[in-house]
Amino acid sequence: MKITDIGERGLIDKIADKVCYKNRRVIQGIGDDAAVLSLGKKFLVATTDMLHKKADFPTILTPEDIGWMSVAVNLSDLAAMGAEPLCILMALGLEEDTSFDFFEGIVTGIFECCKKYSLDLVGGDIDKHFELTIVGTALGEAEKVVLQNGASEGDMLCIIGTLGGAAASINLINESAVVVDRLKDLMRAKISVKNPFVREGIILADFATSCIDTSDGFARSIHNIARKSNVGFLIDYDKIPIDPDLASYIDLDVLLYGGGDYGLLFTIKEEDLSEIKKIKELSGKIHVIGTATEEKEIILKNKGKKVTVEDKGYDHMVKT
Amino acid sequence: MKITDIGERGLIDKIADKVCYKNRRVIQGIGDDAAVLSLGKKFLVATTDMLHKKADFPTILTPEDIGWMSVAVNLSDLAAMGAEPLCILMALGLEEDTSFDFFEGIVTGIFECCKKYSLDLVGGDIDKHFELTIVGTALGEAEKVVLQNGASEGDMLCIIGTLGGAAASINLINESAVVVDRLKDLMRAKISVKNPFVREGIILADFATSCIDTSDGFARSIHNIARKSNVGFLIDYDKIPIDPDLASYIDLDVLLYGGGDYGLLFTIKEEDLSEIKKIKELSGKIHVIGTATEEKEIILKNKGKKVTVEDKGYDHMVKT
Repeated sequence: MKITDIGERGLIDKIADKVCYKNRRVIQGIGDDAAVLSLGKKFLVATTDMLHKKADFPTILTPEDIGWMSVAVNLSDLAAMGAEPLCILMALGLEEDTSFDFFEGIVTGIFECCKKYSLDLVGGDIDKHFELTIVGTALGEAEKVVLQNGASEGDMLCIIGTLGGAAASINLINESAVVVDRLKDLMRAKISVKNPFVREGIILADFATSCIDTSDGFARSIHNIARKSNVGFLIDYDKIPIDPDLASYIDLDVLLYGGGDYGLLFTIKEEDLSEIKKIKELSGKIHVIGTATEEKEIILKNKGKKVTVEDKGYDHMVKT
Repeated sequence: MKITDIGERGLIDKIADKVCYKNRRVIQGIGDDAAVLSLGKKFLVATTDMLHKKADFPTILTPEDIGWMSVAVNLSDLAAMGAEPLCILMALGLEEDTSFDFFEGIVTGIFECCKKYSLDLVGGDIDKHFELTIVGTALGEAEKVVLQNGASEGDMLCIIGTLGGAAASINLINESAVVVDRLKDLMRAKISVKNPFVREGIILADFATSCIDTSDGFARSIHNIARKSNVGFLIDYDKIPIDPDLASYIDLDVLLYGGGDYGLLFTIKEEDLSEIKKIKELSGKIHVIGTATEEKEIILKNKGKKVTVEDKGYDHMVKT
């Protein structure tokens, strides 16, 4: 049996099945957006993300985009937990013929993202590699964390950020050089996670009952919250925030099952929803798209019809 | 200009030159065995290491060895700081045709090392990759940390662990199938860091004035302590603990400039040396090999002759 027959989530489940946490500081281990440890009076939140050229860095990205993105994807995981960024370690696997200018571009992008979101680059590793590979590990702090397992029946399902833009960009790169030429800068921004919702995630931690980032796709993210919270969801298609810039390239399949958007999907009690809508940093950003149901299925209402949303999404391990 | 013209340390220096730590929690950033943050009453210590097939996993290693090693190299960095292991995150880049058995072997090795050294696997990432690539990021706790910059004139230079075994093993793999066949299990153990000096490092933290692990080679490690502490060293060749199992394959070049041994090189005041020699966990393991000098050079005394030890070692970035 090959690992590609099992898929990314299957492999993670195999590891999670074997794990047994010995340290009483571990509050959340494998299986959420990030790990949570109790350290001092606060929680320490830790997450790691491996990115590499073939899967994650299409040629339209500049080295600065690549550096930025390698930090930002980790910030999105911290945001989904409600954690304030603290620091990051970066392991860089660089191709032998990399120019110093390209390397400096990556480093510049890393520092720009670190500066904008107030975290320090505190360490890392540099290696020669067949394929450009960057693994960031970010640490954050939180007084309160939000996990994926806290949704209950009647909670409102909400999203910050739009959907489909990153997956549509990747599709266009493979399909249409003309469109890419016209929309390149816009697509670069969407793929390289120019705006991880760090501040929004921290504010949500005081209100949300569950939260996840949408990097593995909308459907997969909803299914994760549903499975862990033991609920289902009824979603209103018309309320889903489709990426406005690339809407004409986003069909239902890309919208539901494409990945790479790094928005925040969360649930919240109805009374708290009206409360957070007043908060300046969140105002105008929250899209209410559905409700949590006792029935365990994920159902999408679209023009009077109801369709079941499948539990699939971007899988790094499936054959391409 | 290519990155291979600059080398690993040159590239790290380029990053370190640009860094500016904003967070007052950062006690030690780039440039030691691990980063140190002040968190609660203790220090949080964090380190990351990228390993991959071509550079780090010769074919004699089993998948279990590979998993073990990917944890153990990080433990060695924590040990050099004097930190107690807390948890680890593992990013796995797996080749598409990897069998499930091979994957399970890696996971078994990871868990075995975690179990032996009492740390929890709390998260990670799984990706498909051209070349097997594993990046571990370990977190540890310490009440007191040892940096590389605290040695002063007159301090004794000591080492725990032997030298040359890992580099000699790698050389033999490239040169002699007959010897490899005879010594395979022994070489597997040396390459895959079967005994990181975790407990020893924690005890040393109360006494050592500086400490580093020898993974980048003996000469490079000494030069790091010397440069950061602004001292030199006079070393007695006869006192250097050459790996007894592979001594006949270890010449002066391999001994000084080969890497991958993961011992602990440290300095200590003479009065504390007699103290720590009595400690059960360290008894019989400490080799006193030299003294710190005001003169900044690193000098090796060998049969009445003195030779200068160059500042070179295992560089992941130099052309091969």
